[in-house]
Amino acid sequence: MSGAKTRGAADIRLRGFSNRAPAAAVEQWIDAAAATLPAEEIDAAAAAGRVLASPLSAPWDWPPADRAIIDGYAVRAAETIGAGDYNPISLALAQAARPLAEGGAALVAAGLVPPRGTDAILPFEVAHAEGARLDIFAAAAAGAGIERQGQQIRRGGLLLPAGKLLRAQDAALLALFGIARVAVVRRPRIRLEIAGPKPLGEGLPGEANGPLLRHLIARDGGVVTEAPADAVIAVGRSAAGPDDAAPAALAAAGELAIHGVAMRPGGSAAFGRRGGVPAILLPGDPLACLAAYVLFAGRLVRRLAGRQARLPHPVREAELGKKIVSAVGLLDFQQVAFVDGRAEPHSSPEAGSLLSAVRADGFVLVPPESEGYAPGARVAVYLYES
Amino acid sequence: MSGAKTRGAADIRLRGFSNRAPAAAVEQWIDAAAATLPAEEIDAAAAAGRVLASPLSAPWDWPPADRAIIDGYAVRAAETIGAGDYNPISLALAQAARPLAEGGAALVAAGLVPPRGTDAILPFEVAHAEGARLDIFAAAAAGAGIERQGQQIRRGGLLLPAGKLLRAQDAALLALFGIARVAVVRRPRIRLEIAGPKPLGEGLPGEANGPLLRHLIARDGGVVTEAPADAVIAVGRSAAGPDDAAPAALAAAGELAIHGVAMRPGGSAAFGRRGGVPAILLPGDPLACLAAYVLFAGRLVRRLAGRQARLPHPVREAELGKKIVSAVGLLDFQQVAFVDGRAEPHSSPEAGSLLSAVRADGFVLVPPESEGYAPGARVAVYLYES
Repeated sequence: MSGAKTRGAADIRLRGFSNRAPAAAVEQWIDAAAATLPAEEIDAAAAAGRVLASPLSAPWDWPPADRAIIDGYAVRAAETIGAGDYNPISLALAQAARPLAEGGAALVAAGLVPPRGTDAILPFEVAHAEGARLDIFAAAAAGAGIERQGQQIRRGGLLLPAGKLLRAQDAALLALFGIARVAVVRRPRIRLEIAGPKPLGEGLPGEANGPLLRHLIARDGGVVTEAPADAVIAVGRSAAGPDDAAPAALAAAGELAIHGVAMRPGGSAAFGRRGGVPAILLPGDPLACLAAYVLFAGRLVRRLAGRQARLPHPVREAELGKKIVSAVGLLDFQQVAFVDGRAEPHSSPEAGSLLSAVRADGFVLVPPESEGYAPGARVAVYLYES
Repeated sequence: MSGAKTRGAADIRLRGFSNRAPAAAVEQWIDAAAATLPAEEIDAAAAAGRVLASPLSAPWDWPPADRAIIDGYAVRAAETIGAGDYNPISLALAQAARPLAEGGAALVAAGLVPPRGTDAILPFEVAHAEGARLDIFAAAAAGAGIERQGQQIRRGGLLLPAGKLLRAQDAALLALFGIARVAVVRRPRIRLEIAGPKPLGEGLPGEANGPLLRHLIARDGGVVTEAPADAVIAVGRSAAGPDDAAPAALAAAGELAIHGVAMRPGGSAAFGRRGGVPAILLPGDPLACLAAYVLFAGRLVRRLAGRQARLPHPVREAELGKKIVSAVGLLDFQQVAFVDGRAEPHSSPEAGSLLSAVRADGFVLVPPESEGYAPGARVAVYLYES
């Protein structure tokens, strides 16, 4: 970051933005400013939703012993050849605990080790037990119904790669292998500073950006904290108005690297450093705050958390029901809702409010080079989901 | 549910399933057995991820007063007509706190109420202040840069509908309107009973189903609890082996309505009632447990939570890289991973283990009437995501 201060953004209060950074340049700045945090060791029971810091090898073969994978009768496959609906073969029922004698069969439950000498499990549906005699009505192929030791993975094989965001089944796998502690990327601690809303009536508006960001920061793997922090997200007073003191304060306290992004809404966002960590200023208008968090601050949190930097929203391709009008030179964060399966825009990015995002099912990103899309165009909708 | 007991499933231990219920019949049973739970009132700050129990009306107009939506100079639009780059018009800068005099302009910050008499805001970029004089270089259309009281929503208008799963921006909207308490659907309390794993080696396998299900139940809006509960999920000993006591125990303690589902894996799942609430028995094998939770138990939790019953996984349509072989008559829960953008199956549903789901990016549901799909076929992949 050396020299960044001299390249820093100027104070644009009462003058407005003379130029704004393209979104791609802001992404580059974020990727350079934030790398995956160091590891910490945690209980494996709390691992879901965390990012694995180091590759994990299988501490055992899996399964750790030959085991039945169906309920039924353990047999020697060779002794079942020729058995059929009209040609039953009789075997002698024996104890599952002992090695299987010739001509024998033993009741076995799925998941347990079959008796020594067994090489197949016949399901109940093709056998009939009468006292100590078992009539079987089908042949078994060698290996049927049995999973061999190490068949899924050998001891020392790669169980989970470093960088993996652990899902429910991945956390369950740790428990299955008896792994009690696991090294994961430390959660990014985000210091959240919120300038109060600008007053419009008695007690109104309420402060909406805190609830909004706490939820989104948690989704991206971060925790909101008091200092010390791994990054600062400050909200409000970021633009060019007479009360917009935040960018100049950031420049004075540290570094203001970028102020103003070629996007709508959220274009007054600023980026720099303070106290040795990356700092992002988000606009105070809640829709603009949402836009700048989604596109930039969320990426910073995910980078620190060791997650994929790209947007975490599921994407649905859809036909546009009504046209989207966009300004050339600006990336538009356009709210859309599905109406009869087609995506329809909600209010323009400049006239939207938090209500537009509440009424939306997702958003469309209209790139700077585009003037918008005609009805019927196919667009990628990034879905809002909790 | 009257008469269900007489239609109940028989004890099939050591005999196997003579018939299995189609998945659609199980879904119908779940939908009949579980309805949305009653409401509770909670702090709005904790509302994200909860389902709204009653429609919410706007307690105020939004915005609650006319407000500037850009930083700039408040003017009367009629007095700006004719202004241009080579034809500036001069206005007298005044205090924003006072009504605007004729020929006047006042500095105003985005988000605040502009002075009375104003009907447009001119951005800084087209104005130049020199002491008490403001030269403007562009005309403003009436209404530009101003949002009128009630423009987004009128007091009493529908803010959020009943049944809405509240996202970050929805929770933020409550804060914006100063709504402190909100009625949401009570979280389903799920009693989780886990039969230990069947031993295969010293301390192995570990108990994986608890970590798996706790995470999935939370995802679906439920909380794992000791009694009293809104539903019971019991895991293990659900099939037809000598040690599979769970279905008969359910029949003895309450009702066993369905035992056995035409699916792989997970086909030994059972459904009934115990202690006056729905009870589901899931297989103890972790992959089968995952399959039966995903397809059925998760639906029960979501129904109780007032959420959409359908699978919550994002769906990606993809081309199949390798064939999927499936058995006619069974719904297959087939693990797939993306390789070069194409979905490839992971081990067969009968020979899979939890590792198949760990190695998978998602799953494909192959309906009972299908023998599978050829390479190149388009399939819907339900994505695993945390």
